[in-house]
Amino acid sequence: MRWGELGSQPCSVARTISVIGDRWTLMILRDCFLGVRRFDQFQGRLGITRHILADRLRKLTRAGVLARVAYEQRPVRYEYRLTGKGLDLYPVLLAILHWGDAQMAGQGGRPLLLEHLACGHGFDPLFTCSHCGGVLKAREVRATTAMPGKISRYWSPTSRSTV
Amino acid sequence: MRWGELGSQPCSVARTISVIGDRWTLMILRDCFLGVRRFDQFQGRLGITRHILADRLRKLTRAGVLARVAYEQRPVRYEYRLTGKGLDLYPVLLAILHWGDAQMAGQGGRPLLLEHLACGHGFDPLFTCSHCGGVLKAREVRATTAMPGKISRYWSPTSRSTV
Repeated sequence: MRWGELGSQPCSVARTISVIGDRWTLMILRDCFLGVRRFDQFQGRLGITRHILADRLRKLTRAGVLARVAYEQRPVRYEYRLTGKGLDLYPVLLAILHWGDAQMAGQGGRPLLLEHLACGHGFDPLFTCSHCGGVLKAREVRATTAMPGKISRYWSPTSRSTV
Repeated sequence: MRWGELGSQPCSVARTISVIGDRWTLMILRDCFLGVRRFDQFQGRLGITRHILADRLRKLTRAGVLARVAYEQRPVRYEYRLTGKGLDLYPVLLAILHWGDAQMAGQGGRPLLLEHLACGHGFDPLFTCSHCGGVLKAREVRATTAMPGKISRYWSPTSRSTV
């Protein structure tokens, strides 16, 4: 499979990876959630070339994850803002953050403390079921294709024997 | 910043991205959660070169995400299994899956239906607070460094004005 074909795969993971599955894209998105919006700010923080940065911002804009908005008229200057589609990536970034915090901490312990401002307490993010509220585990989730008459199970270790 | 420096960044997002922030690595991890374990299976499903696949599997093994285990002795053959550290990546993959399902579906609607086997119902995955159970929103989470005397806020749009 070539990289350019990922986006057309009938798999929601592959489609997402076709948009965000790039190290610098993920670092740019991290910065977006930190409130960074302007080209020079991204570049100063990430230290990547203008060419790579411009390319990734253009792709994210085309994908509808960022919106390029003029914030000054003379001269015209643009900034990049997360759209609704982009803000919906928050769970992806939070899951990445939490894994790094819990699994890549080293001897110094976790580098971050997360605080939930709504309740005022420290917390770990938990992925839960919208129906029963239970914490989701890999072996307890099954994904089936939504197309009628084409129910092939995938995305679940419970189907291990059939792969 | 050079790519090799990401892993030593004092940021849990950067550290995670240094391990999984690569498109093929993410596709390999998707397959791991589907129960794929053997080199030729990965290659057949992903259609990437043996060189790239071997490189990514080696890196994931070195990072402790996969374990290389002999499953046959004569001749010796190995397979790759998710470790505990690897299984803990499930929320990352599930968040990626859900975003693709909700945001990249196109006109045909969502391609997948998720079922929570523990309760038997269809569901959306929700990221919730381990303390109050509330759904986590980007603007309601604050991360502070855990190092005493060095409380710099980051990873929160609420700190937008200070970035």
